Amino acid sequence: MKGDTRKISEDYMDEESQLCELDRSKTYKGLVGLYVDESKITFIDGMQGKLYFRGYPLEDLVNNSNFEEVAYLLIYGELPTKQEYEIFKNELNQERNLPDNIITILKSFPRNTTRIELLRTSISALSLYDPDDYMYTQEANIRKGIRIIAKIPTILAFSHRIQSNQPLVEPSNDLSHAGNYYYMMTGRKPSNEFERAFDKILICHSDHSINSSTFSCRVTVSTLSDIYSGITSAIGTLRGPLHGGANERVIRLMLEEIKKKENVIPWVKKKLEKKEKVMGFGHRVYKTWDPRALILRELSREFWEKEEKGAIDKIPDREHEKHRGNIDNIFEMTEILTDYIIKTKNIYPNVDLYSAGLLHVLGIPTPLFTPLFAASRSAGWVAHAIEQLKDNKLIRPRLRYIGKLDKKYMKIEKR
Amino acid sequence: MKGDTRKISEDYMDEESQLCELDRSKTYKGLVGLYVDESKITFIDGMQGKLYFRGYPLEDLVNNSNFEEVAYLLIYGELPTKQEYEIFKNELNQERNLPDNIITILKSFPRNTTRIELLRTSISALSLYDPDDYMYTQEANIRKGIRIIAKIPTILAFSHRIQSNQPLVEPSNDLSHAGNYYYMMTGRKPSNEFERAFDKILICHSDHSINSSTFSCRVTVSTLSDIYSGITSAIGTLRGPLHGGANERVIRLMLEEIKKKENVIPWVKKKLEKKEKVMGFGHRVYKTWDPRALILRELSREFWEKEEKGAIDKIPDREHEKHRGNIDNIFEMTEILTDYIIKTKNIYPNVDLYSAGLLHVLGIPTPLFTPLFAASRSAGWVAHAIEQLKDNKLIRPRLRYIGKLDKKYMKIEKR
Repeated sequence: MKGDTRKISEDYMDEESQLCELDRSKTYKGLVGLYVDESKITFIDGMQGKLYFRGYPLEDLVNNSNFEEVAYLLIYGELPTKQEYEIFKNELNQERNLPDNIITILKSFPRNTTRIELLRTSISALSLYDPDDYMYTQEANIRKGIRIIAKIPTILAFSHRIQSNQPLVEPSNDLSHAGNYYYMMTGRKPSNEFERAFDKILICHSDHSINSSTFSCRVTVSTLSDIYSGITSAIGTLRGPLHGGANERVIRLMLEEIKKKENVIPWVKKKLEKKEKVMGFGHRVYKTWDPRALILRELSREFWEKEEKGAIDKIPDREHEKHRGNIDNIFEMTEILTDYIIKTKNIYPNVDLYSAGLLHVLGIPTPLFTPLFAASRSAGWVAHAIEQLKDNKLIRPRLRYIGKLDKKYMKIEKR
Repeated sequence: MKGDTRKISEDYMDEESQLCELDRSKTYKGLVGLYVDESKITFIDGMQGKLYFRGYPLEDLVNNSNFEEVAYLLIYGELPTKQEYEIFKNELNQERNLPDNIITILKSFPRNTTRIELLRTSISALSLYDPDDYMYTQEANIRKGIRIIAKIPTILAFSHRIQSNQPLVEPSNDLSHAGNYYYMMTGRKPSNEFERAFDKILICHSDHSINSSTFSCRVTVSTLSDIYSGITSAIGTLRGPLHGGANERVIRLMLEEIKKKENVIPWVKKKLEKKEKVMGFGHRVYKTWDPRALILRELSREFWEKEEKGAIDKIPDREHEKHRGNIDNIFEMTEILTDYIIKTKNIYPNVDLYSAGLLHVLGIPTPLFTPLFAASRSAGWVAHAIEQLKDNKLIRPRLRYIGKLDKKYMKIEKR
């Protein structure tokens, strides 16, 4: 590998001597509850329903900060000074464009594909154009990280508009990260309140310690692979329905199955009778309200009240317009669902339940709900990749073999 | 996600109750020695230096089987009957071609990139063309897996020849998987002995239980993401120098640094004095000879003896030709190195040490050494993805937060 100056730090020592007999005899399927490393990025207090980024409560960041500042905080560990902030914001701003060939490639792909496959492929391809591709210092990794965070909204907006046969909307340097992202997706510059709400959604999703996508990112870079490989793994991992995509399914459910307030309870009863999971509820870590769900619930309430009063302009390409009059207030339907599930099952809504209705009322196209998670979480992925590389240890577990041994090979004619 | 019929099997139960206090209080950095699941695919006996695929000793497979049969064995769990073998071989054969657009894309990328980045990107893009893209049954996953295994050699050969400005060599239906792979890379149909040796190299690399790349594949599909995402993660993980690439570095070392037999001992003494790792030695699991290293060592001995006697034809684009006369017998240099390191450090060579000299004498272009690992291992990755999905549990560990808490947000002007 040319220019590869990384230190190869794995040693030959028998590190397994740290493990006790109990560790060795168990199989930790799913790694449920198991601590795989220390971290200074995010703390989830699952019992109290609290979330902290670098020690700051999520609510303070949502109320006072913006996505750019939170991304800086996640990556560097401290809030920026005014000057640091301006430099960082400017770097993000400058890096929004895509190489021409990536746009050509996006146009060359078949229609009717998920945006997340296009994103996974584009991020993988972008490493070929990164001036730091063969540089592995922390500074180079941060530069690559900034490029990735800056370019994901452009990839998503471009690929969505290509897939739905709409003209591309070039990034606008006058707009914030959230504002520009909204603008490139929809073709409309957002009002202040839309931009602010969208920014809050991005902050809420920007990190969440080590879910599966972040873990796959850390596993990938633990071989000292590059950060593009790490983020590519994370995006592919996010594609799975046990991880991403719940908000997309929630909104389709509301629009296509439930539709009316009076249908909520009969629908959910039937679902629970069949012992099926209800999308948008439950979390492996939170045993109470997910603090992100609470924030998005209030935003959703606010915007749906405005919607009811006709205080939100009609949004031409919003899927909701098709259903106007035939679908009840989605926030109110969500509330009925939440009440029922908490009372009967003691299971709380997660972030996906309320982001669904909120993204919808803000006019975000439904196929972009899941990818939005990737756009926000890219800040966290970059922060985790950099933390992993700071004190790296190759992540290589074992599988317990339970098959047969010493089978005799027989010639194919005799099988 | 359209057509998504997968069962969402994660439940809300507090699975952490399985863990004891000791588990909870520890941090399992690197997951060293920890069992993350059960498996019926591969058993590594690290103390005895034995390796079994589905219960069959590696040596028996290397001596009696071929890559196609071993891939079948890994995926389906049993050796094929004659008829099953013919069908499987035919499927692999039929799936060697790439969609035209993937070739166009490969041609559009900048020169001077690693083949592994091109492979990662191409596999990610291929999901867009797979007729089963939105099918998630085991049968569909096997079909996708076969396509991936069949197409990787074509991607690697095409991208290498594009990058080095050589005409593409279309796959030949008359040749075996190994023979055709060799042919597409080099433009020469291999002799029987070359084909057989290359096939043995592929078998040796086709699985190795859960190294980091296989683990990242399993983490990715554990969200019920698709198999293309899983293999994309694995390839990105393989890119890191702690995992892949050692054989490429071994050969460059031999050709560019050591060159002569008498330089081996002074070189290694200096290396060890500086406490630097010697490429091609040591393994987290084997505490003795890696059985794959032993197999490749004998093959390497055989082919280097022939090379010495001039019994191997000159291979025009083999890097060795440039050095003929200036570089000693690489096998002999490797042997001196091995003797010294085992005696002084009790550390054994791994598979990379001997694959380097062997691939070189067979005329494989050096930039294709690391990707060869991906081509062989794709069989294992597919088998592991399918095993993971058979009895899936979301892989989601925890990070132990060691940062501060409850920091106060200060306005930017006051920082």
